[in-house]
Amino acid sequence: MNPALLKRAIELAVHNVRSGQGGPFGAVVVKDGRIVAEGVNSVITANDPTAHAEVTAIRRACEKLGTFHLPGCEVYTSCEPCPMCLGAIYWAHVDRVWYAMTKDEAAQAEFDDSLIYEQIALAPQTRLIPMVRVDMGEEAARPFREWLGKADRIRY
Amino acid sequence: MNPALLKRAIELAVHNVRSGQGGPFGAVVVKDGRIVAEGVNSVITANDPTAHAEVTAIRRACEKLGTFHLPGCEVYTSCEPCPMCLGAIYWAHVDRVWYAMTKDEAAQAEFDDSLIYEQIALAPQTRLIPMVRVDMGEEAARPFREWLGKADRIRY
Repeated sequence: MNPALLKRAIELAVHNVRSGQGGPFGAVVVKDGRIVAEGVNSVITANDPTAHAEVTAIRRACEKLGTFHLPGCEVYTSCEPCPMCLGAIYWAHVDRVWYAMTKDEAAQAEFDDSLIYEQIALAPQTRLIPMVRVDMGEEAARPFREWLGKADRIRY
Repeated sequence: MNPALLKRAIELAVHNVRSGQGGPFGAVVVKDGRIVAEGVNSVITANDPTAHAEVTAIRRACEKLGTFHLPGCEVYTSCEPCPMCLGAIYWAHVDRVWYAMTKDEAAQAEFDDSLIYEQIALAPQTRLIPMVRVDMGEEAARPFREWLGKADRIRY
């Protein structure tokens, strides 16, 4: 853990608010002790609800390194990742995450991360945004059947 | 619920595997009964671990509608959303999600969604990808202080 890298993530977050670009979040992806990519929250300016700091930093790091997996990389982020960013972190296969503020502190600053963490644990159809399974019979299984039948499929 | 829209999401998923673009997932964002945007999984071809079908469809719908929130919209998706996509769905404030395959069926097709659902419930530092809080003192709170002190902040 290099505190200077976490300071950089915090600095990005502060600057992001001051410049009016977006929410108070910043993140960096680090490999071999060096910053590969940085990201800030740009939900409002980009009209993109997925443009969180961690997601943005991961997307940029992958673009830069020409890969969809980031083994050997660490994420330093100004705040504990929300479930969306946590998912992105798992799909990117980074090694570890270091964060400064907690999700409960984010909740005090009006951010809904804690709510989403609570919602995930509920049965899908009972969530505030109901997620309802529809029985589509044999039709529904076609995509996975095609996938498993594809000898040259690349796992990700 | 309109089964034709869910069929469309499944069709996108099947086509996505056959064309070699990516994983067996498709999604559409619907408003007033019409498809606003479609998305498929393009993790491998785009070198973007966040390019899941739902995330892509949501990003495109927001771009098209010029907004970062999607009230009045529904997502139809070939499979139960992973935690990343679930987070994106909450941040986008859609009304509802309809899905065909479950996350357990996705697990049988070699997709790690269930693992990530299990990981989220664990204490951050005990996860397979450890997420460790670092005490950065007063420094850490600066982004949220700036945010809450900003009278014209836009909540998202």
